Amino acid sequence: MKKTLSLLTGLFLFASPTFAAETTAANVQASVDMLWVMIAAILVFFMHAGFAMVEAGFTRSKNTLNILMKNVLTVAIASILYFVVGYAIMFGDSVGGFIGGSGYLLNGVEDVGFFLFQAVFAATCATIISGAVAERMKLNSYLLLTIVMTAFIYPVVGHWVWSGSGWLTDLGFVDFAGSTVVHLTGAVAAITTVLFLGPRLGKYSKGKVNVIPGHNIPIGALGVFILWFGWFGFNGGSALAADPSIVPHVITTTLLSASGAIVSSALYTQFRFNRIDPSLTLNGALGGLVGITAGCANVSIGGAVIIGLIAGVILVEAVRFIDARVKVDDPVGAIAVHGICGIWGTLAVGLFDVSSGLFYGGGASLLLVQIIGVLAVILWTGATTGVVAFVIKSVIGLRVSKEEEIAGLDFAEHGSNAYELRDTIFSTHSSISPEFGSELVEKLNGLPNGKASTSAN
Amino acid sequence: MKKTLSLLTGLFLFASPTFAAETTAANVQASVDMLWVMIAAILVFFMHAGFAMVEAGFTRSKNTLNILMKNVLTVAIASILYFVVGYAIMFGDSVGGFIGGSGYLLNGVEDVGFFLFQAVFAATCATIISGAVAERMKLNSYLLLTIVMTAFIYPVVGHWVWSGSGWLTDLGFVDFAGSTVVHLTGAVAAITTVLFLGPRLGKYSKGKVNVIPGHNIPIGALGVFILWFGWFGFNGGSALAADPSIVPHVITTTLLSASGAIVSSALYTQFRFNRIDPSLTLNGALGGLVGITAGCANVSIGGAVIIGLIAGVILVEAVRFIDARVKVDDPVGAIAVHGICGIWGTLAVGLFDVSSGLFYGGGASLLLVQIIGVLAVILWTGATTGVVAFVIKSVIGLRVSKEEEIAGLDFAEHGSNAYELRDTIFSTHSSISPEFGSELVEKLNGLPNGKASTSAN
Amino acid sequence: MKKTLSLLTGLFLFASPTFAAETTAANVQASVDMLWVMIAAILVFFMHAGFAMVEAGFTRSKNTLNILMKNVLTVAIASILYFVVGYAIMFGDSVGGFIGGSGYLLNGVEDVGFFLFQAVFAATCATIISGAVAERMKLNSYLLLTIVMTAFIYPVVGHWVWSGSGWLTDLGFVDFAGSTVVHLTGAVAAITTVLFLGPRLGKYSKGKVNVIPGHNIPIGALGVFILWFGWFGFNGGSALAADPSIVPHVITTTLLSASGAIVSSALYTQFRFNRIDPSLTLNGALGGLVGITAGCANVSIGGAVIIGLIAGVILVEAVRFIDARVKVDDPVGAIAVHGICGIWGTLAVGLFDVSSGLFYGGGASLLLVQIIGVLAVILWTGATTGVVAFVIKSVIGLRVSKEEEIAGLDFAEHGSNAYELRDTIFSTHSSISPEFGSELVEKLNGLPNGKASTSAN
Repeated sequence: MKKTLSLLTGLFLFASPTFAAETTAANVQASVDMLWVMIAAILVFFMHAGFAMVEAGFTRSKNTLNILMKNVLTVAIASILYFVVGYAIMFGDSVGGFIGGSGYLLNGVEDVGFFLFQAVFAATCATIISGAVAERMKLNSYLLLTIVMTAFIYPVVGHWVWSGSGWLTDLGFVDFAGSTVVHLTGAVAAITTVLFLGPRLGKYSKGKVNVIPGHNIPIGALGVFILWFGWFGFNGGSALAADPSIVPHVITTTLLSASGAIVSSALYTQFRFNRIDPSLTLNGALGGLVGITAGCANVSIGGAVIIGLIAGVILVEAVRFIDARVKVDDPVGAIAVHGICGIWGTLAVGLFDVSSGLFYGGGASLLLVQIIGVLAVILWTGATTGVVAFVIKSVIGLRVSKEEEIAGLDFAEHGSNAYELRDTIFSTHSSISPEFGSELVEKLNGLPNGKASTSAN
Repeated sequence: MKKTLSLLTGLFLFASPTFAAETTAANVQASVDMLWVMIAAILVFFMHAGFAMVEAGFTRSKNTLNILMKNVLTVAIASILYFVVGYAIMFGDSVGGFIGGSGYLLNGVEDVGFFLFQAVFAATCATIISGAVAERMKLNSYLLLTIVMTAFIYPVVGHWVWSGSGWLTDLGFVDFAGSTVVHLTGAVAAITTVLFLGPRLGKYSKGKVNVIPGHNIPIGALGVFILWFGWFGFNGGSALAADPSIVPHVITTTLLSASGAIVSSALYTQFRFNRIDPSLTLNGALGGLVGITAGCANVSIGGAVIIGLIAGVILVEAVRFIDARVKVDDPVGAIAVHGICGIWGTLAVGLFDVSSGLFYGGGASLLLVQIIGVLAVILWTGATTGVVAFVIKSVIGLRVSKEEEIAGLDFAEHGSNAYELRDTIFSTHSSISPEFGSELVEKLNGLPNGKASTSAN
Repeated sequence: MKKTLSLLTGLFLFASPTFAAETTAANVQASVDMLWVMIAAILVFFMHAGFAMVEAGFTRSKNTLNILMKNVLTVAIASILYFVVGYAIMFGDSVGGFIGGSGYLLNGVEDVGFFLFQAVFAATCATIISGAVAERMKLNSYLLLTIVMTAFIYPVVGHWVWSGSGWLTDLGFVDFAGSTVVHLTGAVAAITTVLFLGPRLGKYSKGKVNVIPGHNIPIGALGVFILWFGWFGFNGGSALAADPSIVPHVITTTLLSASGAIVSSALYTQFRFNRIDPSLTLNGALGGLVGITAGCANVSIGGAVIIGLIAGVILVEAVRFIDARVKVDDPVGAIAVHGICGIWGTLAVGLFDVSSGLFYGGGASLLLVQIIGVLAVILWTGATTGVVAFVIKSVIGLRVSKEEEIAGLDFAEHGSNAYELRDTIFSTHSSISPEFGSELVEKLNGLPNGKASTSAN
C-alpha cells in the first residue's frame, strides 16, 4: 500500500512547480496577473453554488436532494478528470488542430494557476446538463455522461478555440469567454440527452403543455445573483491578466448586458403575458450573461447593452418555443439560456465586434466564421453526446422508473427529504401567545420527529 | 434597423478605451489599483443578493416574487441609467458645485473601472427603497421612482460630495464611503415614499401596532452576511486604490463596527425585551455597517468599535420609534438602518475623526459641517422624492388594490407563487418507512402538481 | 462621558498606522501581498455565512433562529475579543514559546492587515462548536464559552504553531493553514462541551439511535459551497503573500482534495448504505477541505487527491462511529469533519510532504512531530474547555429545560419562529386559476397573520 502510494504520488509530484521570484516590475506584474486569475477562478468556482440553487429552486421539492447531489458531484468529478486527462486533451500538443495529447496529470505543466482556471470552466460546462435532465434522470447515468463530457467532449471543443493551435482559432473564430465553448457545448449535450430521456411525467398530457412550477424561487433568485457575481470572474478572468485596458471593460459589458436582458425580458413578458414573469426575467439575466460572454472584450459598452436587450427577448421566445412547440422538457430553461443565447452571443460578435463586426464596417466574414464555429460545435457535441446517451440508455438506462419519478428522486435514490418543516407548520402559533407553551409542548411531543429509524447522520 | 444600430453603437463606441501598458513599477501599481477597485465593485454588486434575501426573508411569503423582481430590476435599471445619464450628472463638469453635466453615455470618459464602481453604488442607493415600500407598492410605480433616483436624485447628492468640485466637499464634509451619500439618501427617499404610500393593511388597527413577521429568517440572515461580505468592498474599494495605509484599516474598522453593533443590539434587546431579538440583532449588524461607512478611513479601530456599539442601540430604538411612535410602516427596518444609522455615522466622523474630530481636540467645526451635509441631503432628497411620489400617486397610483394586497402581490402582479412545498409536506413520512412507498405513490399521483394551466416556464 | 471616550479612543488610536508609499517594485509587491491577504480575509469572513447555513439547514426548524444567533454573535464577539486580547496572546512577545503577552488592543502593532486575517480565523475556530451543541445549549452559556475560546484557548494554540516562536514550531510541526490549529482545536472544544451537555432529547432512546433529520438541506448545501468558496481564502491566504509559487498550488490542492472527498464519500455511502447519502457527501466535501488544510502547500496535487479520497471515507465512518458507537450527539457532524479529518490532515503532512514526508523518503520524524502536535492540542483544548464547561454547568447550567428543548429554542429563547409559510401553503392554488381570487381573499383574510401581539419588528 505504502509502496503504491509512494509511486503514485511520486508520479503526481511533477504537478507541483516551485520557483523563487525577485522583486522586479515584471515579477510583480506576474504576481498581479496570477492573483487576478486565481480570484477569477474562485469566483467561477462559486458559480456552482449558483447552478445548484437555480436548479434546486426551479424544480420540485421531491427531487431537490438529487439535483444538489448532481451539482456537487459534477464539480468534484470534473475537477479530478480535468486534472487527470481533460487539460491534456484541451491544451496538450495539438494533433492537427483537432485534439491535444500531452500533459496528463499535469506532467510538464508549469502554470498550475492556468490549469485551475480552466478546470473550473470544465466543471461549469458539465453542470449545464444537470438542470435540463432534472427530476427524471438516474444519478449514475448522469455521472457517466459527466465523465465523458469533462474528460473528452468539452476539452476537444476547448482545444479548437482556446489552445492557440485549434482549427477554429486559425479560421479567426472569436469566443473570448465561452458563449460557444462552454455554454453552447453544455446546452447541445443537454438537449441531446433530453431527446433520449424524454419529458417528465405529466409535462405533456393529451397535447396539453402543463406547467410544473419550481418549489423555491427565492433560492433560485439567489442562484441567479451568485451566477452573475461569479460571471464577472468567468468573463473578466478570461483576460488571463490584470490588464487595465481589458478587465474593467469586460466587467462593465458583463454588468450592462445582463441588465439589458433583465429589462427586456421583464418588459417583453409584460407585453406578451400581461405580467412580468419572475422565472423568465431571472432566466433573462442569465441569457444576457451568456449572450455577452463571447464578445465581452470585443464589443462596446453600448453594444453590450443592445446584445443584452436582444438576448432577453430571445430567451423568452426560446423558452416558449422549446417548451410548447418543440415539446422538449427542460425544467430550468438551460437549453434556451445556454444554447440559444450562446448562439446569439457568438453571432453577436460578428455583428458588434468594434474592429471587424458587420455593424462596424467589418463585413460579414467574421460573422461567417462565427456561424461555422457554432455549427461545428453543435455537430461535434450532438454526435458524441448522442452516442454516449444511446450507449448508457441501452446498457443501464437513462431514466428512473415511473414509480420512482412519482415518489420523487429524493425518496427513490436517497431515501430522504430536502425539507422537514412540520415543526414550523405546527408551531407557527407559538409566537402569538406564550400561553400556548405547555399545550404546544404536548403537541410537539407527539410528533414523529426524532423517532425515525436508524441510519447515518 | 441595421443602419440605426450601427449609428447607435458607433456613438456608444467611444465608451471603450484601449491603451497599451509597459511594465514599469508605476504601471504595475496602476494594475493593482484597478484590480482592487474591480474586485471591490464585484463585491458591492453582490450586496444586491444580500438586499434581495433580507427583503424577501423579512416580508411575507405571498409577496416574495414581487420583492425579488423589484431588487433584480433595480440593479438592471440603475446600471443602465447610470451609464446613460447618472454618471454624467455625478462626475461631469460641475455647474456651480451643484450638478455635473458632461460624459453622457461615458463619452470622453477614460476610466471605465471608476464608472463601474460608481454604477454599483448607484444601484445600492436605489434598492434601499424597495424594502421600506414592500408588500403594497405597485411594481411599475416603484420602477418609475427607481429611474428618477438613479438618473437624477442620487447623482446630484454624489456630485456634492464625491465629484471633487461639489459644494459640500468645499465645506469640508467627510463621507468616505457613503453613510450619507448612499444610505441616508436611500432612506430619505424611502420614508418620503412611505408617507405617500401608507402602512400595510392590518399593520395598525384600532391604535394597536401589529407584528407582521417575516416568512424566512434564514435567508434573511444569509442576506445580512452577504451584505456584510460585500460591504468590505463598499468601504474598502472607496479608497480607489490598493493602498496598504488605508485598505486594511478600512476593512478592520468595518468588521469591528458591525461586530460592536451586533453585541450591543443583542444585549440591548435582552435588557429591553428580556430576550435576544434575532431580527433586531441582524438589523443591528447592518446598522453598525452603515454607521462606520462615513468614517471607516478616518476613525481609529477603537473608535470603530464604539461607533458600532452605539449604532446597535440606536438601531433598536429607531426601529421601535418609527414602528410604534411615528407609525411609519417599514417592513424591513430600512429607514432605521440606512437613515438613522446613516445620520449617526455621518455625525460620528465629527466626533471620532482622528485628525479633526471633537473627541480628538479638533473642535466642533467638522461636526457642524457634517450636520449641514445631513440636513442638505434630507431636504434635497425629501423634496425631490416627494414631488416624484406625488406625481406618480396622482397619475397612476402608488399602491395595489386592497384585494390584491390581501391576496398577495405574487398572485396579483405575477399570478404565481414563490414556494410550492406540498410535495415535501405530504412526503415527509417517506423517510420514515419504505413500506409507505407505493401508498405514497398513489397519494402524490393525486396531487394537482404538473396539472396547472399552460403558461411559459 | 465625552472625556472618557476621548481617553479611550486616544488609547485605541495607536491601532491605526499611516505611512506613505513610493512606487518602487518592492512597494508595489507590498501592495499586491496586502491585497491578497485582505481578499483572503474577506473570503474567510464569508465562511461564517457558510457555517450559519450548514448548521441551520442540518438542524430542526424549531431551533433555527437560535443557531443563527449563535453564529452571528460568534463572529462579533470573536472579532472584538481578538482585537482586545486574543491577538496579543497569539502573536505578542513569547513567554517560553507557550503564550504571547504584548500588543493588547493592537498597541504597537503595525500590520493591521495581518491582524484582520488572524481575527477572522479566530472566529472560525469558535464557531465550530456551535454546530455540535446545537438544539439544546443555552445561548448565554454558549457565548461565555465563545469568549474564553477566542480570548484564550485558541490564541495559545495559535502561539505554539504560528507565532514564529512557539514550541511546536521549534519541533518542526507543520500546519500551513490550520487543520490542527483551527479545526482540531474547535472540534476538541466541541466534543468536550458535548460530553458535559449530553445528547438531544429523543436522540438515544432504549439503546436505539434515532435520526433527527435536518430541516432545510438546500441551504445546508449552499452553506457547504460557501465554506468551500471561502476556504480558498483560508488556505490560499495563509501564504500571507501573493506568491505565484505557492498560491495557485494551494488553491489547486484545496479544490482537488475536496473533490476527492466528495467522490469517495459518495461512493462509500453507496457501497455502505446502498444509496448516495446527501448529508454525508456534503460533509465529505468539508472533510476533504479540513484534511488538506494542514498540507495544502506541502503536498503534491496528486497527493491532495489521495488525501481527499481518504478523508471522504474517514468522514463517513467517523460520523457513524461518533453517532452510533460513542453515542456523542453532534447534530451537524462537526466533530467528525473538523476533529477526525483535522487529525487526518495533520498526520497526512507527515506522509505526503514532498520534502520530508514518509512516502517521499523523509522517514517518520515529521510524522512523529505531527502526532505530538495533535496530542498536545487535544490535551490543552480538552483540559481548558473541560474546566470552562464544568464551571458554566455548575454556575448557570449549559442546557435549556426539557420543556424549552421540546418547544424549540426559537420559541423558548427568542419567542419567535424562523418561518411563517402558512400564506404559501394556503395560497398554492392561487396560481392555478384566477377564479379562486376573491374566495382566496376571504380565506387569507381570516388568517392570524399580522394579528400578532405587539413587539418590535
